[in-house]
Amino acid sequence: MRPYNFSAGPATLPQAVLQQAADEMLDWQGSGMSVMEMSHRSKEFSSIYEHAEQTLRELLAVPGHYKILFMQGGGLAENAIVPLNLIHRTGKADFIITGSWSAKSLNEARKYGDVHEAASNSSSHGHYKPRTWLPSQETWKIRQDAAYLHICGNETIDGIEFFEWPCLPEQIPLVVDASSHILSRPLDVSRFGLIFAGAQKNIGPAGLTIVIVREDLIGHALPVCPSAFDYKIVADNNSMFNTPPTYAIYIAGLVFDWIKSCGGLRAIEQTNLSKANLLYAALDKSSFYHNPVDPQCRSRMNIPFFLKDPSRNEAFLSGAREAGLLQLKGHKSVGGMRASLYNAMPLAGVQSLVHYLEDFEKRHA
Amino acid sequence: MRPYNFSAGPATLPQAVLQQAADEMLDWQGSGMSVMEMSHRSKEFSSIYEHAEQTLRELLAVPGHYKILFMQGGGLAENAIVPLNLIHRTGKADFIITGSWSAKSLNEARKYGDVHEAASNSSSHGHYKPRTWLPSQETWKIRQDAAYLHICGNETIDGIEFFEWPCLPEQIPLVVDASSHILSRPLDVSRFGLIFAGAQKNIGPAGLTIVIVREDLIGHALPVCPSAFDYKIVADNNSMFNTPPTYAIYIAGLVFDWIKSCGGLRAIEQTNLSKANLLYAALDKSSFYHNPVDPQCRSRMNIPFFLKDPSRNEAFLSGAREAGLLQLKGHKSVGGMRASLYNAMPLAGVQSLVHYLEDFEKRHA
Repeated sequence: MRPYNFSAGPATLPQAVLQQAADEMLDWQGSGMSVMEMSHRSKEFSSIYEHAEQTLRELLAVPGHYKILFMQGGGLAENAIVPLNLIHRTGKADFIITGSWSAKSLNEARKYGDVHEAASNSSSHGHYKPRTWLPSQETWKIRQDAAYLHICGNETIDGIEFFEWPCLPEQIPLVVDASSHILSRPLDVSRFGLIFAGAQKNIGPAGLTIVIVREDLIGHALPVCPSAFDYKIVADNNSMFNTPPTYAIYIAGLVFDWIKSCGGLRAIEQTNLSKANLLYAALDKSSFYHNPVDPQCRSRMNIPFFLKDPSRNEAFLSGAREAGLLQLKGHKSVGGMRASLYNAMPLAGVQSLVHYLEDFEKRHA
Repeated sequence: MRPYNFSAGPATLPQAVLQQAADEMLDWQGSGMSVMEMSHRSKEFSSIYEHAEQTLRELLAVPGHYKILFMQGGGLAENAIVPLNLIHRTGKADFIITGSWSAKSLNEARKYGDVHEAASNSSSHGHYKPRTWLPSQETWKIRQDAAYLHICGNETIDGIEFFEWPCLPEQIPLVVDASSHILSRPLDVSRFGLIFAGAQKNIGPAGLTIVIVREDLIGHALPVCPSAFDYKIVADNNSMFNTPPTYAIYIAGLVFDWIKSCGGLRAIEQTNLSKANLLYAALDKSSFYHNPVDPQCRSRMNIPFFLKDPSRNEAFLSGAREAGLLQLKGHKSVGGMRASLYNAMPLAGVQSLVHYLEDFEKRHA
């Protein structure tokens, strides 16, 4: 049996997807080529691309007036690419700061216009402290002339997730960094102007970025925007202005098929709820571990937790590895542990982790 | 037996590399993880990354004062990223125009400064005509205050390759787009300020870009340069500021190992010479096919050729497919045929193509 891999990303993938990729590595469906070896303009790769795009559109019920773009650079590059494409209208962008990722997004956008922190959950200055709550929408101070509002749907490091989307004035499109929660549950795409997500959590290999953008927001890039990152050029060329990351798109398509075979996003959400509830319950009933996040906004995808006695961290991690539970170390900025429960983590993996938590506590409490 | 794949890129890969990738897909060397599933900061992936970087450094004998960066976006993104990082010193960049790729590079750089065509092999205005020769260096009109000079080492569409590198004034670093000839022969890295290459020809999967840059050229990015594409930030973070395309880097490392096992770049060059000579000889002795490029600068990697009677093109291509010779159709901008003979194309593949050329001519001349 393969061990359970709790990495925050790049992250565990469905075993069936990896098996199919291995089987097709030297010869994709009788073509005589690996997918890696196909011209991006060949009829073989075109069929792979169109299938992936269509399946994603179907899974998320993406409305017809939204484009799906397959790009490169990850979430960090989008922190620049989004303002390069969207800030033009007024030169202003507002941000809700809920953790490390949204803070990085604001800092990067500063290069391209006037940025503003409309709300924040920071309780400290200077040394970084874990964020544990979401500022309620009534407290947000959004500028009426902001070209867009940016939020991070799930803060991977802090373990904080949005479950309700804000209502904004019509002229202010909502931009969401959905890197670490996309496809973990249904999403009403029509609530957003733009959704972006690095692939390396719920979609596929690192090096692919998905952008879903409302058509009216396309075509207004700043003159300094590199052509390869101008949404209009990318959209007009079906993501083939520059050679796209073809193999990553192929794997993403297999993952989309796998999600469909699981019953789609409603079924996936139920499993993700069961997994997260199981782990939070185990942490909450223990006095040996704890998770500091407000239960209202606890992430279903990334669950940071801390041993009350951090001197046991190393023993915890090496015991976990021996038990076949991999990559549980917390992000270096906050320490402790983190279990990422993306779609491809089976319930059995979380059961196994809970069993280990209880056993370790018994032996060390 | 697998068919021979003459795609210009993404392109054929060594069968041994694909086989190893298939074998390790579900479990990389007992780690219990696919390489796709590893955190980029894990010790497992760090070892893969360092091995790939070291092997590339060894193959090209990269001097210690050059950094090797693993980036995203391909050659087309570098057309913006290079001026964003290098044009600052004087705001001017000069270009030698030898085909489609160098022309695209100049056009993109226009966004970031004052660009200048120092030489060109264009013989036409308006409608695109194949380029067939290289302007000799004595005719180049380089501005003494250019921040750098850009050349395309091998024009993939036109089939024109540089075999001698220009000598420039010390203050003007030479930038080469080496996307389609890197690792096909030894390269004296010290002659260049910067070398960039999309991976999808001689290195690995699309979605990875290699940049080799002299240290003194790093650290001068324009303020509008996205952080993810600022060479200093990429270098200071060992290409892990944004999550790198980890699986593509793993495949690239396997390809680097394969080149080493072939005897390194001198041995690879000998094979590439034999392959190209064989095909050019077959084309030149025929009155049925022709290649219009000056023999002094004929590409060893991409060999465009034309049937004198283009009405036979479709029959030629479908017969080739039946003979197990794939992706021979020429680029849409020039038509005709193109055989790309990258490192992973064995001599037997070119022999097979030559046999087919002769046979088709016999049947249709």
